[in-house]
Amino acid sequence: MAGHMTPEEFRRYGKQVVDWIADYQEKVESYPVQSQVRPGEVLASLPAGPPEEGEGFEAVLADLDRVVMPGITHWQHPSFFAYFPANASGPAILGELLSAGLGVQGMLWATSPACTELETRMLDWLAELLGLPARFRSDGDGGGVIQDSASDAVLIALLAALHRRDGGAAAREGITRRHTLYVSSQTHSSLEKAARVTGIGAANVRVVDVDPDTLAMDPAHLDALITEDIAAGAVPVLACATVGTTSTTAVDPVREIGEVCSRHGVWLHVDAAYAGVAAVCPEFRWVNDGLDGHVDSYATNPHKWLLTNFDCTALWVADRAPLVGALSILPEYLRNRASASGEVIDYRDWQISLGRRFRALKLWAVIRWYGAEGLRAHIRSGVRLAAELASRIGADPGFALLEHHPFGLVCFRPRWEGLPDDEADAATLRVMERLNASGDLYLTHTRVGGRVLLRMAIGAPGTGDAHVEAAWRRIREETAREGRPAGQ
Amino acid sequence: MAGHMTPEEFRRYGKQVVDWIADYQEKVESYPVQSQVRPGEVLASLPAGPPEEGEGFEAVLADLDRVVMPGITHWQHPSFFAYFPANASGPAILGELLSAGLGVQGMLWATSPACTELETRMLDWLAELLGLPARFRSDGDGGGVIQDSASDAVLIALLAALHRRDGGAAAREGITRRHTLYVSSQTHSSLEKAARVTGIGAANVRVVDVDPDTLAMDPAHLDALITEDIAAGAVPVLACATVGTTSTTAVDPVREIGEVCSRHGVWLHVDAAYAGVAAVCPEFRWVNDGLDGHVDSYATNPHKWLLTNFDCTALWVADRAPLVGALSILPEYLRNRASASGEVIDYRDWQISLGRRFRALKLWAVIRWYGAEGLRAHIRSGVRLAAELASRIGADPGFALLEHHPFGLVCFRPRWEGLPDDEADAATLRVMERLNASGDLYLTHTRVGGRVLLRMAIGAPGTGDAHVEAAWRRIREETAREGRPAGQ
Repeated sequence: MAGHMTPEEFRRYGKQVVDWIADYQEKVESYPVQSQVRPGEVLASLPAGPPEEGEGFEAVLADLDRVVMPGITHWQHPSFFAYFPANASGPAILGELLSAGLGVQGMLWATSPACTELETRMLDWLAELLGLPARFRSDGDGGGVIQDSASDAVLIALLAALHRRDGGAAAREGITRRHTLYVSSQTHSSLEKAARVTGIGAANVRVVDVDPDTLAMDPAHLDALITEDIAAGAVPVLACATVGTTSTTAVDPVREIGEVCSRHGVWLHVDAAYAGVAAVCPEFRWVNDGLDGHVDSYATNPHKWLLTNFDCTALWVADRAPLVGALSILPEYLRNRASASGEVIDYRDWQISLGRRFRALKLWAVIRWYGAEGLRAHIRSGVRLAAELASRIGADPGFALLEHHPFGLVCFRPRWEGLPDDEADAATLRVMERLNASGDLYLTHTRVGGRVLLRMAIGAPGTGDAHVEAAWRRIREETAREGRPAGQ
Repeated sequence: MAGHMTPEEFRRYGKQVVDWIADYQEKVESYPVQSQVRPGEVLASLPAGPPEEGEGFEAVLADLDRVVMPGITHWQHPSFFAYFPANASGPAILGELLSAGLGVQGMLWATSPACTELETRMLDWLAELLGLPARFRSDGDGGGVIQDSASDAVLIALLAALHRRDGGAAAREGITRRHTLYVSSQTHSSLEKAARVTGIGAANVRVVDVDPDTLAMDPAHLDALITEDIAAGAVPVLACATVGTTSTTAVDPVREIGEVCSRHGVWLHVDAAYAGVAAVCPEFRWVNDGLDGHVDSYATNPHKWLLTNFDCTALWVADRAPLVGALSILPEYLRNRASASGEVIDYRDWQISLGRRFRALKLWAVIRWYGAEGLRAHIRSGVRLAAELASRIGADPGFALLEHHPFGLVCFRPRWEGLPDDEADAATLRVMERLNASGDLYLTHTRVGGRVLLRMAIGAPGTGDAHVEAAWRRIREETAREGRPAGQ
């Protein structure tokens, strides 16, 4: 042992792993969705120290079943309805495998030109599939790049916005003035994280009012806050509009927000992490409303609902100059003729890390395997299942439904008649805990207007009518067991 | 077509991909190391738009050979000596494949307990393999985490340092005072990037003198700079010591730097991205010198020289509280019983992104396949080859050798007698460009004391005596062709 795995060994073990994954795909429904282990249980099953001598790969596969699998919450289970989907798919898994097999670094164009150029082309393909405005494409001033996650995308956008605002002064000298950001109560927590990370400060994240029914950001209040902040001497840097919020898939009025931002010279980032990919379907192209106006950056996650394994956030900017200006540093050992020529993209200047994997391969594999029509069919399936679930819930007097459910997420709660709100919310959470503990399905929750709502996000490739029906049955069962839902 | 890839299809195509990678491993030496394509060539070979209908996976594999492979610079080629190695290995590739196949998110313990607990255990294993001080292990106040890259690790360390310094004031209110960081001229550029990103500002990165011979940071000058900055009202936050610099693998005096940092309450981050993993061998355990003193965070990259595919940076902190304090935000939809219990680690609070892949699987596969002795054999092989190359270079009057080469990197230059320095450097760069363009090997360069040095980094799993000998022959050939190396 103790030697490198030979190509022949790789062939043998690689095929075992492929079979293991195919078997897993076939039997994923036999697992409880949520792992049943207690804290420390997996840790205790692992040896305290590393082996002195190497072991065969069979030993790893055996322990995978014995130790790891009990500790897995199955995101690819068709009854996984928590958070948002994190779609894996066969072609994406194989794209990731190819990337690992090639083992190249895409930090510079020169370190593997195909890694950069395939990514550039895939982001253009995706822009076309989604019908994004031409200025986000790489043949003009803009362009796209793959980031780890929507959190990274918003951090990158914020750094570019700062750079555009002050010509790089804060990056050079440090932040010395008060800078402000604009979100709503529904915006993803990554904005607050980015404010902390960039030294802008969480307290300078201004929270714009939302419409109490639609939970959409109020552009007039945004305007008022920016005006007030400017009058107080602050520097407004970036507003984040969301298309499909994490909590309830609310949709901010991007065009109107863009008009406000444009008047004040504020960078508008649009976070469509979950819902943006729905634009592959003409009937959901409305999610792009306003992107043709004043929008500086736009992000959506093929790794959520578009069948491309995490990590694959697509970030586009209308102007790549401030982004590269914010992030480019050129030490001697990275100097090379291609970079100096200005003819190439070096994606290290579009991200925090220097190194980068060849992630475009999985996006390429997915788009080619499914084609536009396959991607559309996948999105439509999730939306149809969600709509059918919502009509069932809406027709049941025992449940209150959040009327807004244009995508795959349905939010609702049992009506606990006669209970004060806090006790009713506690009952709802107990129902959720029991459902999750049962392993039959997995839900998460949110709060809207102070009240707990259950979130059921549909969109895994394997989810079909039977899974949604079974989930709905189990939800009603556990609700009935809990006590007194209205009308039952 | 246009449907999901079935498990049976995945079995078939998966095995084709495994064979494709094994074939690649067998024939990697038949490719030119550096891609020969010109800017735009790969892009032009790809269709301008995405397909409307899905295609078979065979089409992707065919275009992989036709379009992508000519654009690959082969980091796994045994004659790749550029930058630092980015080792791939069979077990790591299969670990990455398993991670993609499972498709789970490790943002919270609850979202897949095994993803968190295997990572905790692997970082403890690695701490043991490297002989790191006990306080970095997870059973005390410290602990380890996998980051994308050493750049992320230093950014995370800096945010934790800021938090410890001011109790989170800058994160809440924004940076309002001048904060300072301490590096040397040899520190990785990611420190400057982190200063920009965090709003501290590149101008507040203070550059400590180095010993002109060893290129190691001067602790006395560090002390003087910190004292000067405090007197001027600045807040010194973090110093970064490097064990194995990118340019020449110089080693800073960690213990002495730690003593200075300790006196001033400055966070010491030790960046051992490349060289830290050498500590698997007792004879290189000296790279840990000083880690038992005042060191707050430590990072090394198994994805460079320890056979674990990118991305896998191991970051340890002696105290996880300021790190979690800096990065934790808890929106409603992430609340869960396990997190509230305080019994578990939620790694989303140890990184910028919310989502995270199951990267511990590849580290587990690597450590088990190789065992400690296999990892040692790999490190020793690279060091031996580098030492032998260095003695050849040192014995050749036509070349000047940088005497410091304890690891796998050898720096040297042809002596161009009679040429002024700038012309000599230009000649050295021409030699490098021709060598790289030939496809026979791939080198990068650096500058030390203003002079260009060639960097030859040895450490790919496939590199053996014959590859190093062939490289040295080609270097002498091209040098001779260029003109007048001394003594030839």
